[in-house]
Amino acid sequence: MNYGIVFYCLGWVLSFEALFLVPPSLCALIYREKDGLSLVITMLICLCFGMFAVFFKPKKKRLYSREGFVIVALSWFVLSLFGALPFRLSGYIPHMIDAVFETASGFTTTGASILSDVESWPRSLLFWRSFTHWIGGMGVLVFVIAILPLAGGSDMFLMKAESPGPSVKKLVPKVKNTAGALYSMYMVITLIEILFLLAGRMPLYESLLTAFGTAGTGGFGFLNDSMARVTVYQQVVITIFMILFGVNFNAYFLIYQRKFKDLLGMSEVIAYFSVIIASIILISININGMYPHTWIAVKDAAFQVGSIITTTGFSTADFNLWPSFSKGLLVTLMFVGACAGSTGGGIKVSRVLIMAKTLKKEILSYIHPNSVRKIKVDGRQLEHSVLRATNVFLCTYLFVFVFSFLIITLDNFDLETSFTAVAATLNNIGPGLSKVGPSANFAGMSYLSKIVLTFDMIAGRLELFPVLILFTRSTWKK
Amino acid sequence: MNYGIVFYCLGWVLSFEALFLVPPSLCALIYREKDGLSLVITMLICLCFGMFAVFFKPKKKRLYSREGFVIVALSWFVLSLFGALPFRLSGYIPHMIDAVFETASGFTTTGASILSDVESWPRSLLFWRSFTHWIGGMGVLVFVIAILPLAGGSDMFLMKAESPGPSVKKLVPKVKNTAGALYSMYMVITLIEILFLLAGRMPLYESLLTAFGTAGTGGFGFLNDSMARVTVYQQVVITIFMILFGVNFNAYFLIYQRKFKDLLGMSEVIAYFSVIIASIILISININGMYPHTWIAVKDAAFQVGSIITTTGFSTADFNLWPSFSKGLLVTLMFVGACAGSTGGGIKVSRVLIMAKTLKKEILSYIHPNSVRKIKVDGRQLEHSVLRATNVFLCTYLFVFVFSFLIITLDNFDLETSFTAVAATLNNIGPGLSKVGPSANFAGMSYLSKIVLTFDMIAGRLELFPVLILFTRSTWKK
Repeated sequence: MNYGIVFYCLGWVLSFEALFLVPPSLCALIYREKDGLSLVITMLICLCFGMFAVFFKPKKKRLYSREGFVIVALSWFVLSLFGALPFRLSGYIPHMIDAVFETASGFTTTGASILSDVESWPRSLLFWRSFTHWIGGMGVLVFVIAILPLAGGSDMFLMKAESPGPSVKKLVPKVKNTAGALYSMYMVITLIEILFLLAGRMPLYESLLTAFGTAGTGGFGFLNDSMARVTVYQQVVITIFMILFGVNFNAYFLIYQRKFKDLLGMSEVIAYFSVIIASIILISININGMYPHTWIAVKDAAFQVGSIITTTGFSTADFNLWPSFSKGLLVTLMFVGACAGSTGGGIKVSRVLIMAKTLKKEILSYIHPNSVRKIKVDGRQLEHSVLRATNVFLCTYLFVFVFSFLIITLDNFDLETSFTAVAATLNNIGPGLSKVGPSANFAGMSYLSKIVLTFDMIAGRLELFPVLILFTRSTWKK
Repeated sequence: MNYGIVFYCLGWVLSFEALFLVPPSLCALIYREKDGLSLVITMLICLCFGMFAVFFKPKKKRLYSREGFVIVALSWFVLSLFGALPFRLSGYIPHMIDAVFETASGFTTTGASILSDVESWPRSLLFWRSFTHWIGGMGVLVFVIAILPLAGGSDMFLMKAESPGPSVKKLVPKVKNTAGALYSMYMVITLIEILFLLAGRMPLYESLLTAFGTAGTGGFGFLNDSMARVTVYQQVVITIFMILFGVNFNAYFLIYQRKFKDLLGMSEVIAYFSVIIASIILISININGMYPHTWIAVKDAAFQVGSIITTTGFSTADFNLWPSFSKGLLVTLMFVGACAGSTGGGIKVSRVLIMAKTLKKEILSYIHPNSVRKIKVDGRQLEHSVLRATNVFLCTYLFVFVFSFLIITLDNFDLETSFTAVAATLNNIGPGLSKVGPSANFAGMSYLSKIVLTFDMIAGRLELFPVLILFTRSTWKK
């Protein structure tokens, strides 16, 4: 383990966090909020620690797989810890564990909250809370890579560790430029959403916060009942953009390059939209009787499906009150998650696709034991290592899930609460069902549970392995 | 597909079912029960159909993997269908779907019931109900193999398709003799349990039924509240034998051969006992406050843990009322299941072990990407095909689980009921939680749900693939 480079990179991450704190501080200045002081103090703390660490340039600048994973995992813990300071210092969240939970929930784009009344909060702190979604959505290290010069080839390990999905594709030959291209597309689509919201007469501040929550597929809002009170036009805009941010960003790059034919070959994106449409139809039929008009049922079904499969976590209806089938389907979508290479969480559509193909192949191999079959995705044969990684991911996912679930049950909530609390955090969704449903929050959980769920949020965002590696002794050997 | 051999083998299975109906018919004779007539009629029906099919000897006697799977899967459906006739004909279960559910639950050793009052039933019908557990536990085809002469090598495909676990070991060179050895050990241990129960002053009839339920890890009893009313001594005997029947039978063969050293090398059995002991301790601590004495808590914890991990499904306490942690742990054990090569169901301890080892290997491969590691179990390197089959099994398992779960939610029960109903049937346990908990039953479910759960019981018992193969078109090509 090259401790020098780890320390150095964490320094840069903290310096960047200071930078990220500039917009909310400006927001405090505009609205003349005294609580903005906590943001400025945090900014200075981050800057001091960050610059101090960056001062010690490592002798060996090259980093490998192991260091890449450790840097990414530690970065996210450090970000959440320091990012929580404004909430703690301003006194709006009195306990540090709660503040870290809320911040990790922000950066990991989970959107699980311990707050019941956000409408009484100062605007600058809410801005920071939602802004963490936007930063975390595309990734902090991806942002750092796009700006900082790192020794050649090293940055791929950071990119791999932070980007979701079974395999990471470079859009352009250089990793640095790929990171830049991703952030550019991310910014442009966010901007388009803001314009659409402004066109629907949502004020600028609220449009920004909504766009941050949608773009990062986060779910923090500015109203106590999420998105139930915004206009129907705004709900429709949010629905569409939630779904768009769940699409693999490679698709947008293909559109940018005008390679529309290749777009139709992306089986993951096609599967993603098929699942969404099928789910909306099924849930609309299931809940139709509860609504005065069918189109309201369809609108609410679409919003909730889009919100859950992309793991955003906004809500316009308390789906905890929906019939079991709709709830069951939403819980299933929680696990499926969005496309790989998007800002969404969950197991990812591409992994589910690979699993389905493996299953089909296995059945055929029982019928014709001696024939050799290869699994193809998008016309190309799937590498054995990707296949194995997908299967192992599933095992690991289940182990982490069960372990977390058992600790949460110590709080003695009903099993639906415990189960969906883990599902909602490990998949970076936000609300679960029952006592952590859309109209409730995580405030009632014990501190032990909150620590476990904070861990789950970060583990889920980084797809388990970077975080699990921290717990192996051989990681820390020199 | 060699249709001739399939038809021929199904004929033998039906003929053997007629044979299996002899003991309960004798029971009816002894207790002079008129309802026994339904058993005799069913016996004759099975014999007619069976002998008719056996009359057409197939030209090609050799069968392959595909035929093996199809024969085993169809056998279990046919057995359940014909085995349900006594319940339907006697009128004790008026609807055929209910009767088939109850019979499939018997043969698959699930023990999920739609009956609330078994104490009012005739003894001969209850005998048949419990006897199906004993037959299904070690397997019908295994029994057929042990007795019938089949063309050399063919029987291995049948054995593989019916025996649980990631890989099937032959105890002795010949499959026929292996099947015989398994049934001999099965009979001897059942007999020992009956003797222990008789020694505890349980009458012969009740001892037989209890032993059938324990040996097959089934769970059907003769009292309305399962095993809550039998004496403490009897509860302890049942606890011990439930756990013993969840052990890989290879272990007993090693004991028979006096290879005690090899016994200590069976990591699955060691893991199995470790999980049981740990779970008993944790649950005892968790429920201690609900009981007047610690030893009663330990006794009930041990009984429930033994019953759930072996997927038997007997109960001495309504664990639906236990704290969430205990319930959560029991639900986890439902999925873990017993050892491979035992009569128990679930995912199997050996698969969980393999998954844990894969996970460990994957984490290390991130730290040292270029080193090659092999997964070893019991000192031997694991074959790639076993590893792949284990991973694919898990995927398949999840797909079947989610699909069944979504259909069950149409009944609009709470999610805990729907979730544990599938868990309890797919893992061949019996009772779930909430509305299908130990003090409730499956009578309230819709017929659609019962059909799905019947399917799940058989799919779970045969470890999915034999049953799934029935739904592929290429299976049925000539």
